[in-house]
Amino acid sequence: MSVLVVGSVALDTVSTPFGQVEEALGGSACYFATSASFFTSVSLVAVTGGDFPQEHLDFLASRGIDLDGLQTASGKTFRWAGKYEYDLNEAHTLDTQLNVFEAFDPELPDHYRDAEFVFLANIHPELQLKVLQQVRQPKLVALDTMNFWIEGSRDSLLKTLKHVDLLMINEAEARQLAEEANLVQAARKIQAMGPKSLVVKRGEYGVLMFHDGHVFSAPAYPLEEVFDPTGAGDTFGGGFMGYLASTGDASVENMRRAVVVGSAMASFTVEKFSLDRLRSLEFGTIQERFQMFKALTDFGDLV
Amino acid sequence: MSVLVVGSVALDTVSTPFGQVEEALGGSACYFATSASFFTSVSLVAVTGGDFPQEHLDFLASRGIDLDGLQTASGKTFRWAGKYEYDLNEAHTLDTQLNVFEAFDPELPDHYRDAEFVFLANIHPELQLKVLQQVRQPKLVALDTMNFWIEGSRDSLLKTLKHVDLLMINEAEARQLAEEANLVQAARKIQAMGPKSLVVKRGEYGVLMFHDGHVFSAPAYPLEEVFDPTGAGDTFGGGFMGYLASTGDASVENMRRAVVVGSAMASFTVEKFSLDRLRSLEFGTIQERFQMFKALTDFGDLV
Repeated sequence: MSVLVVGSVALDTVSTPFGQVEEALGGSACYFATSASFFTSVSLVAVTGGDFPQEHLDFLASRGIDLDGLQTASGKTFRWAGKYEYDLNEAHTLDTQLNVFEAFDPELPDHYRDAEFVFLANIHPELQLKVLQQVRQPKLVALDTMNFWIEGSRDSLLKTLKHVDLLMINEAEARQLAEEANLVQAARKIQAMGPKSLVVKRGEYGVLMFHDGHVFSAPAYPLEEVFDPTGAGDTFGGGFMGYLASTGDASVENMRRAVVVGSAMASFTVEKFSLDRLRSLEFGTIQERFQMFKALTDFGDLV
Repeated sequence: MSVLVVGSVALDTVSTPFGQVEEALGGSACYFATSASFFTSVSLVAVTGGDFPQEHLDFLASRGIDLDGLQTASGKTFRWAGKYEYDLNEAHTLDTQLNVFEAFDPELPDHYRDAEFVFLANIHPELQLKVLQQVRQPKLVALDTMNFWIEGSRDSLLKTLKHVDLLMINEAEARQLAEEANLVQAARKIQAMGPKSLVVKRGEYGVLMFHDGHVFSAPAYPLEEVFDPTGAGDTFGGGFMGYLASTGDASVENMRRAVVVGSAMASFTVEKFSLDRLRSLEFGTIQERFQMFKALTDFGDLV
């Protein structure tokens, strides 16, 4: 089954303690789609300006990503500039230029409307809903959001959340959305807002998934060098949804595996700037890292 | 096999967003010994003042803890006062009165000297070494420490660490001791200081264990109500060492199980003030929580 993603396509300028990169390929939809493309076919909905480099389009197409829903508008491509200090868990935004995203009006090509797995990446909740309403009969709808929308567009977000099966969100944002400090209680409040599943992203501490009375905990892979955390969350989302779509199985057992697949994908992205690590990644290496998550977490029975 | 612990016996005054308690039983050695006593016999080395309530001694004795090494000195018992805000990961110390600990000179009863599992809880590294030198042939020596000693008694700490098999330490303190932000690299540096195993405590994010080229990750149990985190780390240590001693097996596979046992024990302690939850805890409930850790972390194979 295929995955549809709506989100940003961006040119990112990022500096970390280990180096910097200017106007590199970025954006939630690019990270998500590239990650998911290792598992299944992906349709991308987004907008770029006339200045978006052809080489980036060629790269996305080379991953088999359907770009029919990628509009080109007059104006400049969305740009983000950020900086990380030694605490790589926190991005400091230096500059955000919405550019063509200010007037973005997503319109799905007809062949996109049969998508079964839908990922509404982090954009305005009204736009997320507008995309979702164009999909005929989705099997699983996941949504990512951030503090900016929780604070500034709470009503729109709550309206959109009613139509969502799974919310993927950072830990601090889960607490903020639920207005509850305890994460277990926050999860229950969020589940009452609509999404019956909640995937809480905790950066280097991994992921907690709440689903149907179950809780699942997966660590992040302990890396010796985290080079640039940009896009880790969306890469996780792409691996998670791509794996679910490829198996066509949204059972809780398979969602657990999908969390580990997503975590494995994210562990690659942070090894280099931009999408560079994913460009050279091979499927066998993903399978190997999945096994390394097993070795990292397995423990036997009490003796 | 039996466990020996040296550490503090204290009267704690603690306030959390959920209540407060005055001069309750506390101290690293008490949390550790009580937790370990569910698995094996424990010998305690510490000092109290003449004001230490008999009921607390009776409780420790009722757990089968050997108190022959608990000195009573003239003066007052060690006291700690602390406060937690809604972020329960961080204790704010309001007051520390060393009292009888200022002149503490640990002297082991002869029958203590054959201990095989030794836990040097968080006290001055010179005292830790003095205790260790009195033990004849320990099978596994673990040490806990804190930023206060890392900053103020670094040379003593480094000297003591050379004789230690396993260091149990908070995440921030691991980075501080190694002077290295990346935890995987910090672990390698610490292992070069002496301890071939490192157990990094990450509060609500669980535990990472580094041992012999292996890494093991265990989550903390996601609790709906964390009432008072005081003593969680020492309770973890007691479960970890108690389980290892009870099985007599310090293999890496068994150390993984011991990490989960310790995590289970800590998850009980934080449910109530002081040692109150451990007072009513039954062994079957510990086994049940171990199984809940399995359910929390298990995931299948890729399909």
